[in-house]
Amino acid sequence: MKYILKPGIHWLFAFIPIAFFLEQAEASAPLIFFSAALSIVPIARLIGNSTEQLATYTGDAIGGLLNATFGNFPELIIAVIALKAGLHGMVLASLAGAILANLLLAMGASFLMGGIKFHNQDYNVTSIRVYSSMMLIAVISLTIPSGFHILTVEKAAIENENMLNLYLAIVLLTGYVLYLFFMIKTHADFFKSENGGHSEEHEGRWSVARAVITLVIASVMAAVMSEVLVGAAEETGKVLGMSSVFIGVIFLAIVGGAAESISAITMGIKNKMDLSIGIALGSSIQIALFVAPLLVIISMVVGPAQMNLNFPRGLIVALFLSVLLAAMVAGDGRSNWYKGVQLIIVYVIMAMMLYFVPTT
Amino acid sequence: MKYILKPGIHWLFAFIPIAFFLEQAEASAPLIFFSAALSIVPIARLIGNSTEQLATYTGDAIGGLLNATFGNFPELIIAVIALKAGLHGMVLASLAGAILANLLLAMGASFLMGGIKFHNQDYNVTSIRVYSSMMLIAVISLTIPSGFHILTVEKAAIENENMLNLYLAIVLLTGYVLYLFFMIKTHADFFKSENGGHSEEHEGRWSVARAVITLVIASVMAAVMSEVLVGAAEETGKVLGMSSVFIGVIFLAIVGGAAESISAITMGIKNKMDLSIGIALGSSIQIALFVAPLLVIISMVVGPAQMNLNFPRGLIVALFLSVLLAAMVAGDGRSNWYKGVQLIIVYVIMAMMLYFVPTT
Amino acid sequence: MKYILKPGIHWLFAFIPIAFFLEQAEASAPLIFFSAALSIVPIARLIGNSTEQLATYTGDAIGGLLNATFGNFPELIIAVIALKAGLHGMVLASLAGAILANLLLAMGASFLMGGIKFHNQDYNVTSIRVYSSMMLIAVISLTIPSGFHILTVEKAAIENENMLNLYLAIVLLTGYVLYLFFMIKTHADFFKSENGGHSEEHEGRWSVARAVITLVIASVMAAVMSEVLVGAAEETGKVLGMSSVFIGVIFLAIVGGAAESISAITMGIKNKMDLSIGIALGSSIQIALFVAPLLVIISMVVGPAQMNLNFPRGLIVALFLSVLLAAMVAGDGRSNWYKGVQLIIVYVIMAMMLYFVPTT
Repeated sequence: MKYILKPGIHWLFAFIPIAFFLEQAEASAPLIFFSAALSIVPIARLIGNSTEQLATYTGDAIGGLLNATFGNFPELIIAVIALKAGLHGMVLASLAGAILANLLLAMGASFLMGGIKFHNQDYNVTSIRVYSSMMLIAVISLTIPSGFHILTVEKAAIENENMLNLYLAIVLLTGYVLYLFFMIKTHADFFKSENGGHSEEHEGRWSVARAVITLVIASVMAAVMSEVLVGAAEETGKVLGMSSVFIGVIFLAIVGGAAESISAITMGIKNKMDLSIGIALGSSIQIALFVAPLLVIISMVVGPAQMNLNFPRGLIVALFLSVLLAAMVAGDGRSNWYKGVQLIIVYVIMAMMLYFVPTT
Repeated sequence: MKYILKPGIHWLFAFIPIAFFLEQAEASAPLIFFSAALSIVPIARLIGNSTEQLATYTGDAIGGLLNATFGNFPELIIAVIALKAGLHGMVLASLAGAILANLLLAMGASFLMGGIKFHNQDYNVTSIRVYSSMMLIAVISLTIPSGFHILTVEKAAIENENMLNLYLAIVLLTGYVLYLFFMIKTHADFFKSENGGHSEEHEGRWSVARAVITLVIASVMAAVMSEVLVGAAEETGKVLGMSSVFIGVIFLAIVGGAAESISAITMGIKNKMDLSIGIALGSSIQIALFVAPLLVIISMVVGPAQMNLNFPRGLIVALFLSVLLAAMVAGDGRSNWYKGVQLIIVYVIMAMMLYFVPTT
Repeated sequence: MKYILKPGIHWLFAFIPIAFFLEQAEASAPLIFFSAALSIVPIARLIGNSTEQLATYTGDAIGGLLNATFGNFPELIIAVIALKAGLHGMVLASLAGAILANLLLAMGASFLMGGIKFHNQDYNVTSIRVYSSMMLIAVISLTIPSGFHILTVEKAAIENENMLNLYLAIVLLTGYVLYLFFMIKTHADFFKSENGGHSEEHEGRWSVARAVITLVIASVMAAVMSEVLVGAAEETGKVLGMSSVFIGVIFLAIVGGAAESISAITMGIKNKMDLSIGIALGSSIQIALFVAPLLVIISMVVGPAQMNLNFPRGLIVALFLSVLLAAMVAGDGRSNWYKGVQLIIVYVIMAMMLYFVPTT
């Protein structure tokens, strides 16, 4: 389903050599940062395409699993690179930002663009309820370690904090695996789109070898460009007078999720609301309940220190309110242009707040 | 629709001269305060009536706009007067209080009184969903500057804070204009009452001239009496041992919204629940998304300093919880007496808390 | 309805003499604590049974009242004993824990076990909405005194705090009485189960005398064993390295509500979801809106000092998020196994957090 816009973003591959050239030429950090950012968008698309191609060989269950697991692979790669550099704050910011971007910006744009074309757009209410409760659980589980950190910060409880975060990660990953089992196996009917799916899109089928090789190459490319991106991130913040939280929440998050956001919006314009919402909300859930806990565990291996999920209080409140709003706005199974405006307004307001928070 | 109780509150006009007399006689502040308060109730009704009369000449769309915009004119006038006196804290308290009074007290009384007469009362669910999400957005947008203020208070970020509040005000006003467009133009069908509206009430139609002149005179009267009211507010608090927050949240808010609250309750008793809820919730939305941001901009012109929307944390939490409760209680399109009790209980509890907070 | 498991837990009565023996033998605190805890489970069942037997003589209205009022009698007894010992913190923790255990653990286990047997389980949506809004009111009313305590802690406002809590207790008890009136008298139809009720269970009817005498004896036994339990609680915490909050929230709460939790789960497995949810949610509502305010008033008589409802901030947030989640998960009138998993995961996460909070 992601082929549609492919011709439109192919040319962004040109930013791969540009970013490298700028880095060698010691150009200013923002130039390097945004070139690397743009180059990751088509790479992310490529990862998405090859995963989908692989999925055509595996049957629905495994295919769904593959899609779900690799769906946020670009975000994961960027985060691991930042983790190795010890930029825990920026990783957390980019995770929170990715959720906000999916919930508010991608879904909002989909509702708005779709709503301009269609008076009302209907979609499956049952799946929305599952997504909403998963998102709320996600927020709760991110609140716990943050609250713990705030409440115990003066008490030198770092060992307890590490243990809590590790066990939390294990519980969340278990919950996520059961969620996939629920979604793919026992209650797949809940997630059926009313428009009949997207079988017509399997026309240009790849061989298994091609899909696997493309996936590997694209992943390596993503890792390399992420290295460039993350390397320039902090300096970019300083040059532009933006906090590293702002860089993480807004820029890193939009870059990592651009391919999926574009898909969600395209589906909205095509009146395939179930797919659109499934991409936007599914991606948020994955980041919170799969990528975030996975990063805690990965950080124990690759990082200089274990990364704990102690999001700053402001981001937790922002996430919580966004999840509530998304649940309320999307909850009745019918969207219109103004619902899109509502979601986008809140995204803009939150971005504004982060922009104005003083760079300390 | 507001004529019904007119005979009942006409006599309150007598409090205009009484308030002036008491002020001249240098009576105790509470006497002046409550006289001025009572005199504003029929003036607010007069503003409402003349707006509605004007609206009969303009067609539905502009009429709706007029009603919506002038609906909280008394609140706006009181707030501007207090703004000029530099009483920012009291303005914020009265805004928060007006929202609480509409959401909990007016809607609660309407449900209770209506529910005593009718076993269950049904109303349009679609509009409730729009109102609920608008209210949540309102709370989110009031949380942002308050959170910013709390998080950055020690960092001398006042310039950033002013900019954030100004931009926020512009975004909210834009969102409000689009909301009117949505409500009046593109999706007017969402807000249709099932009882067929209130056409029968246009019997005693005024001429345009009479409506305009009445509107102007009533507005001037409101401004004058607000001056008296606000002038006595702080002293009243001291005499009665109440904090200025309590005076603002409870008394100023109830006075400013009395006319509308009475309308909402009257409609409830007449089983016109859509109108009743539309008044109560519509008014809350207007205060948060139109009056509040407008006051930020007005404060830059008339006030000694820009007023920022940094509500005290307690009020933000109270607003947030009230919006959630109202959304949950009203959300299923069917009211009964106990739902009214639920809303009123929460109002009483919150008022109690504010009453007992020590006057610092 | 509670007879079903009776044979299964009869043998737990053996822990009454065991607990006494251990106490005399000055065994380690945890042994005494857990023996006393286990002995309370069948006593609580006995209280439940005798109440139900009495109810068969009184007609539906009074019977409902009896059941509702005595439903959390064991919790009440444990709390009063702890109150007399001045353990306010532990009482509050056990109240919060009882709500969490009902909302998340009992309802979650009921959904999970029922869902393993049945693909989807349907239940009455109307009653769920009432329960959800009552729970939200409960959380709001517990937030108020806690917020007051946090906001005014440095200002020596203890007298105001006591008054606020007393008035709050009176308002909540009034609200609860009206709720019973609503539920039993004016809107009993809202709470009807679709499965037709449980008339078949009145087979082994007791005489009034037997029911009353059993109720009295069981209550005395509960009080005695609670004394043993509470006496060993603090020492148990020290020995096991657990905070008294953890002991209160997890252990005391589960013990007090064990009988009801088992009933809720049994009903879930029997596909009587309305009963199951009614027990779990009804019990939570009762604890928050009946037991908690009642304890405030009782504390003025029996305790060394008035107990105020100033829950620690972490518990309030946990309660609030759990209520939201429960409302969202249960709100559509249809459960499945994964909904159970969702609720249980959140319970586990919260328990983990409390476990790792340093014992100060």
